[in-house]
Amino acid sequence: MSEAVTHFKDLCSPIWNLYSVRSLLYWDQQVLMPSGGGGARANQIAALEKVCHGMLTDTKFKDSLQRAEEAAGEDIDKRYLRSARRAYDLASKLPSRLVEERARATSLAVEAWVEAKKNNDFKHFLPHLRTVFDLTREVAEHKGYAEHPYDALIDEYEPGMTTKKIDSLFGGILPPLVQLVQGIAAARPISRKILQQPFGFEGQHEFSRYLLEQIGFDFNRGRLDQSAHPFCASSTSSDVRMTDRLDEWLVTMSIFGSLHEGGHGLYEQGYPAEWNSTPLGGGCSLGIHESQSRMWENFVGRSLPFWKAHFPKMRSIFPQQLWGYGPEDMFRAVNYVEPSFIRVEADEVTYTLHIVMRYELERDMITKALDPADLPDAWNEKMQKTLGVRPPTDALGCLQDIHWSDGLIGYFPTYSIGNVVAAQLWNKIGKDLPDLESEITRGNNLGLLDWLRKNLHRYGSSVLPEEAIFEATGGEELDHRPFVDYLWDKFSRLYEIQRP
Amino acid sequence: MSEAVTHFKDLCSPIWNLYSVRSLLYWDQQVLMPSGGGGARANQIAALEKVCHGMLTDTKFKDSLQRAEEAAGEDIDKRYLRSARRAYDLASKLPSRLVEERARATSLAVEAWVEAKKNNDFKHFLPHLRTVFDLTREVAEHKGYAEHPYDALIDEYEPGMTTKKIDSLFGGILPPLVQLVQGIAAARPISRKILQQPFGFEGQHEFSRYLLEQIGFDFNRGRLDQSAHPFCASSTSSDVRMTDRLDEWLVTMSIFGSLHEGGHGLYEQGYPAEWNSTPLGGGCSLGIHESQSRMWENFVGRSLPFWKAHFPKMRSIFPQQLWGYGPEDMFRAVNYVEPSFIRVEADEVTYTLHIVMRYELERDMITKALDPADLPDAWNEKMQKTLGVRPPTDALGCLQDIHWSDGLIGYFPTYSIGNVVAAQLWNKIGKDLPDLESEITRGNNLGLLDWLRKNLHRYGSSVLPEEAIFEATGGEELDHRPFVDYLWDKFSRLYEIQRP
Repeated sequence: MSEAVTHFKDLCSPIWNLYSVRSLLYWDQQVLMPSGGGGARANQIAALEKVCHGMLTDTKFKDSLQRAEEAAGEDIDKRYLRSARRAYDLASKLPSRLVEERARATSLAVEAWVEAKKNNDFKHFLPHLRTVFDLTREVAEHKGYAEHPYDALIDEYEPGMTTKKIDSLFGGILPPLVQLVQGIAAARPISRKILQQPFGFEGQHEFSRYLLEQIGFDFNRGRLDQSAHPFCASSTSSDVRMTDRLDEWLVTMSIFGSLHEGGHGLYEQGYPAEWNSTPLGGGCSLGIHESQSRMWENFVGRSLPFWKAHFPKMRSIFPQQLWGYGPEDMFRAVNYVEPSFIRVEADEVTYTLHIVMRYELERDMITKALDPADLPDAWNEKMQKTLGVRPPTDALGCLQDIHWSDGLIGYFPTYSIGNVVAAQLWNKIGKDLPDLESEITRGNNLGLLDWLRKNLHRYGSSVLPEEAIFEATGGEELDHRPFVDYLWDKFSRLYEIQRP
Repeated sequence: MSEAVTHFKDLCSPIWNLYSVRSLLYWDQQVLMPSGGGGARANQIAALEKVCHGMLTDTKFKDSLQRAEEAAGEDIDKRYLRSARRAYDLASKLPSRLVEERARATSLAVEAWVEAKKNNDFKHFLPHLRTVFDLTREVAEHKGYAEHPYDALIDEYEPGMTTKKIDSLFGGILPPLVQLVQGIAAARPISRKILQQPFGFEGQHEFSRYLLEQIGFDFNRGRLDQSAHPFCASSTSSDVRMTDRLDEWLVTMSIFGSLHEGGHGLYEQGYPAEWNSTPLGGGCSLGIHESQSRMWENFVGRSLPFWKAHFPKMRSIFPQQLWGYGPEDMFRAVNYVEPSFIRVEADEVTYTLHIVMRYELERDMITKALDPADLPDAWNEKMQKTLGVRPPTDALGCLQDIHWSDGLIGYFPTYSIGNVVAAQLWNKIGKDLPDLESEITRGNNLGLLDWLRKNLHRYGSSVLPEEAIFEATGGEELDHRPFVDYLWDKFSRLYEIQRP
């Protein structure tokens, strides 16, 4: 390795180590920090970010990066430098005045949003929403883009993704998905009686832990705890921490929450330990990350083979509740489809429709095609058109998500990219592992995990999302068709309907 | 506030915020980090220390400190600068070669010590012990001292303390304490049958938490967890975390462990929140810190008034075990005195004797008056002389503590300084609060806490230990007599013996 590269890596080491500490601070805050610790914690996180930002935007860093780029020979070093360059660009393109202004504005906006949601008072939130979008437009200008200001925003979460590609993606998904939703609405509903019972917390926790062990999560390098909002915070691949949330009357929340976060966790445990706290560690984008959580949650966790394998365990934990039921009952119940107002409670079919409308609305607010004042009406109309329901209040409508108040604009599409990529991978896996279904039925998920490790996880952040998809699928680009086919295939059988 | 001072405080803020993060990383590692996370955590801590050290020893820091010192007018700013200057001196006086060499040597020495203790093999540890003391002697030379190289070492833990002062302190304590131990050995032993029973974990935890609430620990700004070795890690005064350890057959471990760590915790919760993550936060020395833990553990926790107040609660948790017993039985049992080999299991009377011998031995190894090869014999003879027992193995003798392997030389005396200061404070408190005993008997400890807050806690690190003692006692210097009198007074009654 050239001296210039070594020198640069030495500069990166403290920065990425502090970044990995930040993720632990976040976890701690959500899971067990005493309530009075919030102010001091905010200062700690701000200090950590200031120090990292200072080191990252120091001329020394830039010069060393340039020298390393000129000297780098090995492929892996080039990937290291590409990822570090991305971080440098993200950190250095925005004037600190704008960064601070946005931090302040979003902090106030989140506060106002909490209030507005509680009181169903969109007007209270409107000025903040306007400010956040104004500042975000400025951010896009500073970051730069080839075609569309929204490109600059989504690129932060999904490197290389563009508005044009997303338009084409959602353009392909929307019509057949609306057809499917309408078909299901007209079909005979599935029974979900099996789920409409209380399930004790201890048993839920035991079953969640059991499932995470079954899908191969390594508890020597991770934890499962509880928090108000489930998440996965990976400090390093040696310390990956997930949370779930328990509700006595909604056992599916802990089951699929755990599998979802477990999918994120497996991805994070899958890159080499020597990449810990370096630009090569972590996942390569939010969309690719979401492909892993959705795969384990939906493609695996909501499948009949999976319930054939694990229903007996669940029945042994909850013998009273599950007496007289079988795996088929559980499989059907967890695939109940119903258009609803709330994204995070949506089923596999309607979920994407929630995302598409959010994408269109935020894109249009960025271009000023939609004025924030008109958001509630636009929201309700889109929802009526695609999901066939109309929220009775803004609290159940355009005020339900935290993202816009928090300045996370360009983020929503990554949820759907995850579903789409998961379906592409699932197709390829089906070809590479012809016995997959019977393996999963026998309770063996390690063949699948091994495939994911080999074809995706081990690359960490050394690849761009499109490279990751290309590598893992054997040459494909992002393609919505496998996802649409997967949904139609699965749900037309479940609901006994015909694809037109 | 002058501009120079403001500028300097801005430089300090990220450094002390990162220091407060380090304490959280340590807590996390001891309490709940997954076992595989150790390597990555070591890198995170090393990076954090490197970044802090870099910022602290930067010329910018030094220059700004000097300018602030010249400009500072307000008393509190001068104290801020004095504390920051101390940190700067500690960080800048040692050449980084020596810091690294010592870090490596102590890391190897701790490993060798673990092995040597397990196999009772002092010879295996000897070369490492020699290296650590050689390097520590070098450290002392770099730090500088007026009279004795050991002064430079203890000053790190107890600013302003000297070898001469400690010699005088221990010189005063040793004779009357040895007499007391001999008197007790010849007296009729106390019964501790009440403690020789199993106590369930859940009940122990409940009682510990109850006691911490009773002494005024604020759980909105702190936590109690379990760990292998009890400790108190305070990130800020808004987030103070303690641990205790449970043993079914040794209920006193959790009771007095919690009160001890609780004493540290109350001190840490007692400085103003605006001093969080600044040179003014935290406690002013290890000795003063220990005065708080020992006061709540021994002066309060091992007193009859305390058990009169809280025995009923303990009996309600453990009705079977405590049936037929009363507060007096508990008071006597928890004050059972017996010379033993192990420091951390020692009672209130013999504890100081363990410290004195360690102090004399490490001081003599620093001056080369004692060769490390002769440590086992020197240890055993001192123990025979002061405690009247002789350890059958080195594992139970000079290999029992981690401190020397870890380079913590100059640390032991702070434990005894804590006892001595606690007794001085206790005398003053007795004068200021004439109803203290009856308040404690009624279960009201808040008057005591209020006194400590007002006279000690609120000063944080803004005072030096001798200033803290002076302020709180109304003009005293460190004085061993109140401690000796306290012990003789308490234990001559308990054991019905006469002070000669």
